[in-house]
Amino acid sequence: MKAVVYNGPREVMVKEVPDAKIERPTDVLVKITSTNICGSDLHMYEGRTSFEKGRVFGHENLGQVVEVGNAVDKIKVGDWVAIPFNVSCGHCANCERQLTAFCLTMNPGMAGAAFGFADMGPYPGGQAEYLRVPYGDFNCLRLPEDAQEKQADYVMLSDIFPTGWHATELACVQPGESVVIYGAGPVGLMAALSATVKGARQVMVVDRHPDRLKLVESLGAIPIDDSKGSPVEQVMALTNGIGADRGCECVGYQSHDPQGHEHPNMTLNDLVKSVKFTGRIGVVGVFVPKDPNSPDPLGKKGEITFDYGLFWNKGQSMGTGQCNVKTYNRQLRDMIHAGRVKPSFIVSHKITLDKAPDAYKHFDARDSGWTKVILQPVAVA
Amino acid sequence: MKAVVYNGPREVMVKEVPDAKIERPTDVLVKITSTNICGSDLHMYEGRTSFEKGRVFGHENLGQVVEVGNAVDKIKVGDWVAIPFNVSCGHCANCERQLTAFCLTMNPGMAGAAFGFADMGPYPGGQAEYLRVPYGDFNCLRLPEDAQEKQADYVMLSDIFPTGWHATELACVQPGESVVIYGAGPVGLMAALSATVKGARQVMVVDRHPDRLKLVESLGAIPIDDSKGSPVEQVMALTNGIGADRGCECVGYQSHDPQGHEHPNMTLNDLVKSVKFTGRIGVVGVFVPKDPNSPDPLGKKGEITFDYGLFWNKGQSMGTGQCNVKTYNRQLRDMIHAGRVKPSFIVSHKITLDKAPDAYKHFDARDSGWTKVILQPVAVA
Amino acid sequence: MKAVVYNGPREVMVKEVPDAKIERPTDVLVKITSTNICGSDLHMYEGRTSFEKGRVFGHENLGQVVEVGNAVDKIKVGDWVAIPFNVSCGHCANCERQLTAFCLTMNPGMAGAAFGFADMGPYPGGQAEYLRVPYGDFNCLRLPEDAQEKQADYVMLSDIFPTGWHATELACVQPGESVVIYGAGPVGLMAALSATVKGARQVMVVDRHPDRLKLVESLGAIPIDDSKGSPVEQVMALTNGIGADRGCECVGYQSHDPQGHEHPNMTLNDLVKSVKFTGRIGVVGVFVPKDPNSPDPLGKKGEITFDYGLFWNKGQSMGTGQCNVKTYNRQLRDMIHAGRVKPSFIVSHKITLDKAPDAYKHFDARDSGWTKVILQPVAVA
Amino acid sequence: MKAVVYNGPREVMVKEVPDAKIERPTDVLVKITSTNICGSDLHMYEGRTSFEKGRVFGHENLGQVVEVGNAVDKIKVGDWVAIPFNVSCGHCANCERQLTAFCLTMNPGMAGAAFGFADMGPYPGGQAEYLRVPYGDFNCLRLPEDAQEKQADYVMLSDIFPTGWHATELACVQPGESVVIYGAGPVGLMAALSATVKGARQVMVVDRHPDRLKLVESLGAIPIDDSKGSPVEQVMALTNGIGADRGCECVGYQSHDPQGHEHPNMTLNDLVKSVKFTGRIGVVGVFVPKDPNSPDPLGKKGEITFDYGLFWNKGQSMGTGQCNVKTYNRQLRDMIHAGRVKPSFIVSHKITLDKAPDAYKHFDARDSGWTKVILQPVAVA
Repeated sequence: MKAVVYNGPREVMVKEVPDAKIERPTDVLVKITSTNICGSDLHMYEGRTSFEKGRVFGHENLGQVVEVGNAVDKIKVGDWVAIPFNVSCGHCANCERQLTAFCLTMNPGMAGAAFGFADMGPYPGGQAEYLRVPYGDFNCLRLPEDAQEKQADYVMLSDIFPTGWHATELACVQPGESVVIYGAGPVGLMAALSATVKGARQVMVVDRHPDRLKLVESLGAIPIDDSKGSPVEQVMALTNGIGADRGCECVGYQSHDPQGHEHPNMTLNDLVKSVKFTGRIGVVGVFVPKDPNSPDPLGKKGEITFDYGLFWNKGQSMGTGQCNVKTYNRQLRDMIHAGRVKPSFIVSHKITLDKAPDAYKHFDARDSGWTKVILQPVAVA
Repeated sequence: MKAVVYNGPREVMVKEVPDAKIERPTDVLVKITSTNICGSDLHMYEGRTSFEKGRVFGHENLGQVVEVGNAVDKIKVGDWVAIPFNVSCGHCANCERQLTAFCLTMNPGMAGAAFGFADMGPYPGGQAEYLRVPYGDFNCLRLPEDAQEKQADYVMLSDIFPTGWHATELACVQPGESVVIYGAGPVGLMAALSATVKGARQVMVVDRHPDRLKLVESLGAIPIDDSKGSPVEQVMALTNGIGADRGCECVGYQSHDPQGHEHPNMTLNDLVKSVKFTGRIGVVGVFVPKDPNSPDPLGKKGEITFDYGLFWNKGQSMGTGQCNVKTYNRQLRDMIHAGRVKPSFIVSHKITLDKAPDAYKHFDARDSGWTKVILQPVAVA
Repeated sequence: MKAVVYNGPREVMVKEVPDAKIERPTDVLVKITSTNICGSDLHMYEGRTSFEKGRVFGHENLGQVVEVGNAVDKIKVGDWVAIPFNVSCGHCANCERQLTAFCLTMNPGMAGAAFGFADMGPYPGGQAEYLRVPYGDFNCLRLPEDAQEKQADYVMLSDIFPTGWHATELACVQPGESVVIYGAGPVGLMAALSATVKGARQVMVVDRHPDRLKLVESLGAIPIDDSKGSPVEQVMALTNGIGADRGCECVGYQSHDPQGHEHPNMTLNDLVKSVKFTGRIGVVGVFVPKDPNSPDPLGKKGEITFDYGLFWNKGQSMGTGQCNVKTYNRQLRDMIHAGRVKPSFIVSHKITLDKAPDAYKHFDARDSGWTKVILQPVAVA
Repeated sequence: MKAVVYNGPREVMVKEVPDAKIERPTDVLVKITSTNICGSDLHMYEGRTSFEKGRVFGHENLGQVVEVGNAVDKIKVGDWVAIPFNVSCGHCANCERQLTAFCLTMNPGMAGAAFGFADMGPYPGGQAEYLRVPYGDFNCLRLPEDAQEKQADYVMLSDIFPTGWHATELACVQPGESVVIYGAGPVGLMAALSATVKGARQVMVVDRHPDRLKLVESLGAIPIDDSKGSPVEQVMALTNGIGADRGCECVGYQSHDPQGHEHPNMTLNDLVKSVKFTGRIGVVGVFVPKDPNSPDPLGKKGEITFDYGLFWNKGQSMGTGQCNVKTYNRQLRDMIHAGRVKPSFIVSHKITLDKAPDAYKHFDARDSGWTKVILQPVAVA
């Protein structure tokens, strides 16, 4: 089958790889009709991780079931399913408490596995014609009758919509509150959408790309352009000098200033300053314990210079980490189905698999207009 | 009246100051019979804060009411009361949500006020014969009939017992869990007591002072001596290599290694390593936004080098800040009254006010046996 | 001053009563510009309570401060304030945990006091030119600069908007969920508004009055007419036979069938049947421990025949009771100010105080078009 | 194999039934070494349910794995396992939120399945030599190396220890609180143990059997003998007339007065009266939607006469239903393993399977000394 394969820093190829197939009786095999390029793919694409050459990308996957193992009871051939990026077992101490991003089974020695991801187990990604989904009954989310028609919405259930939602959960966003979100990439925009759905009174989103800031505005949220001045001061001006009730980090360790210099601590320290005393911060932007190719000596060790005294003095709290997709994907699916939300508003491109190399280039360069790309490996009638 | 007054780095004097008196109709005036020296007094004592010469120390206070303002309805002359270290108004946006450590009224421009504390408002402390308590109906906790007899227990309600409890609340300690606490000073010991009361299965406490480690053992908790080897490795060995479910920081920015060198980030980074994936950390040790006298350039700015990549990768969360004493002091009082806990087990000295200068010296030097000092300004028949 | 006074079953008069005035140094005196007639006033109006002749009605009050006691620090003369229906002290064991509807101080021997309410203390109501507010700093909620202009919205903060919100809190309504609300009176409509703000996916409201059902529809919620068939069956049809995730009771003990017969257990048993296994029910409709004038022998004792076996079998849970207004009124105020909600959409009449007797008659008769009445005792320039 | 079979009201037999065996690739087959008689077995034993003749009893099971299906990955032959009474799938909307007592898969048309239970699916019980466990990886809880030695403790993990714990969770028992528990049968005693572990300050347990009240006392809890006077008055006297903070119902619909007359509403109404304003009540005693053999006309329909006006007026809340065993059994297992709790303190008899008929008789008669019976179908070397 054809798949998007990593070939070294800033190089992906579409090539033939061995067919995905049922390997265990609990497996499900899915024909992939929509699979996104994610911002976290770019860390691997840029060679900033241990992702091995030859591995297949793709952890935001949706498609139709074509085969099931003989121990699969719920999922049936023909079902349309959205597949969480986390590969999880369903029966370990973490999975049974919904901490599926920290499954203790699927990536022994670590907590948490994912499709097509550095350091998260051997699982091939879904930027390919077919994907094997382990523990299919547990991992596959069945979609309703409008699955095919709304697949650009439902595919967001595999990662970024739950991840944006998770940012607002980690930050404990409550109805009527004020929220500041750093980053208006796909995850930041999903966090803004989530905060809005939850009844936040004021949603501010910091970025500098005009196309992204325009999408912020389309949600009824407040765009803050950090190339025009300190985002902290802009937030303070909008909150009577008090700061936002809650903050979300949706950028990660490669955050950089408007001049393009990386500062892994930039958004975190800005959040501490932008959020009120007793406020809470949710961090879903990726940070890594080791980053050997970082330009910064601290960065190589995964360390940052953190404004901890202020953080403590303000009595703030912080939640972090990858999203447990299954914790949220049912309720978000039902909201899509009911027409309450339409996360596909961020999609800029729907293209065939063979155009992936070009798309990676544009997305990595944050080229204007390339906000979110859906690859369509298999066309459906 | 006599009071313990700050006279510059490492110097306190007992001298005459103007009598405390009712200034507002909502005030209560308390004759102080027990008032502790706290570890956080030592930051001021050592000259590491902006605490002004001439100010009166003392934020852990208990005594008997001698006069009330004409708008005081609940508190009566003769009542025995424990007084939270936080001075709070009871009607601001934070107080009404029990965030009394972040009162927006009593220290304008900041959030939170305290008796006898640097940067926390003009309120004189209670290491004196009398103390004026603003908003007395709100701030004073009435004590039951055994108040006088058990005052060595009840005085702990003013700060360290609630603060230790707060550490375990911030860390979300649940029954049956494993907890590691850094610091076996008075607050760390109260955190250990709290975790035990809450049904923690395994409570480990890291320190190096033999007298403190012995008190840890007296609680049925596990003492970990970090002068004998890496505390992280000792915790890992005790938890099958998984790490503790929860962690508490009860040391603060002046944490130092067994050789005596200060490392403000030491306990925090050790906690990240000692606590499991998805675990939660509560930090009640004091960290400050500015520390001009720090030996360390980052420290001067209140910054630390934080192992953030690992923190995020493990999906941990963290709660911080001063304790909202009123959130817990009723339930803790009732437990003392019922004989379920006896926080006075840490008390090493009960002495008269005039011996305060000597006591400060010993406590600051962590001299063996000086675990907790109660000053008794006014003797009661 | 003029006030609306109870004169026996189904009879109110507007007459002169002694002027409200400052009695305690913590009091605030408010000139009332908006005061609503509430559904719970009707229980008293109809003579179904122990409300004494001569007492002044009115617990939904808003106005401008004209005088403050000398212990009042926050509230200033000239402030516009919304006043919770609960009269609470701010310093008892319940108030300090935000349970202001169960204040232990203001109605000794009971828990909870209110303005102008049977069995809830001696406090005169605000359907009058002036109102004395005890513990003014604690009880008065200050309003922003648009207070006067938006007073038809802000006055809802005194009771029904927080009470409707409370119904959804007691029911633990989460974003993306399905909710059924029994009763489309003012409180039920506020519950529907609240559920919508919180991101509920599907909000169903049961009633039979066409004017109310039209207001339901105006919120984007689903009106269910129980005079057209079983509301339980209608809910089941709308939820694939599963039932709603959450249910709210906004009717109370005088619930009656479309034929007009009272059945105090009707809405509760319907809720048990309409809500799914493991669902949760919030009950803010008033139920009373004694109802001597009930037509029903059980009702006289405050008892109902409850479908408990089904409730337990479904593993449902239930929260009840009067609303702690202060728990919610700040965040709801901020949402009104930000233009996120406009609770005045239910108001049908704004009239002067002397028209109160006529308004009571129409409102009690549920006359078409009389959805919510605001009395305006004092006109403001 | 031999099994305990229902043969009509008050009659069980030990007889040969077809061997349990692996039927699905996800099944696990367990040799049963300990299986308890439960109070809820008695409802079936007495003929008060639709339990069919010929069915095998037993939902509190522990044993050693003898065979696993080819899709079972975690559980291995030789593992000692405790088996929750709930039979659950692990992948439905309820199971994935830990609501395993309300599994939507295993008992179609209802929510929730159990081994050997009326109306809860076709699953044979474990009062037999072998038991088939569906979805073995999800349902079996592995036990540590002391499994065999401590099996009288660990077998309590299958039902009554988690169920007693659940009562205290539904009632939201917090450290330092006061709790009243109605019923000192095995579940009530486990609730008392749970409240104690959680740091409750005062645990009161109502019953009238001297052997049970003695066990209450052995926990350091307060026995209340309701044959000596009103339990409500006794609770009030012990709580300064305020009532307990929390209440637990551990009796169920067959509750009867000291004279032996059944009153399905008795414990519930007593709880409403015994628990304070704003208190919370957890109900794990079994109530049924239909009880055709009830002596009481309301009881036949599963209805009770409930003191609802008082419940609402006090602003109480209530949680109900069967226990989701998997939510708690890991943490409780770890506490047993660490020696923090010893739930076997209630065991009065350990006997071979053939003595089951006699044991049922004594247990059903509440004969003195028959507090808890463990059957041992297979002896282990």
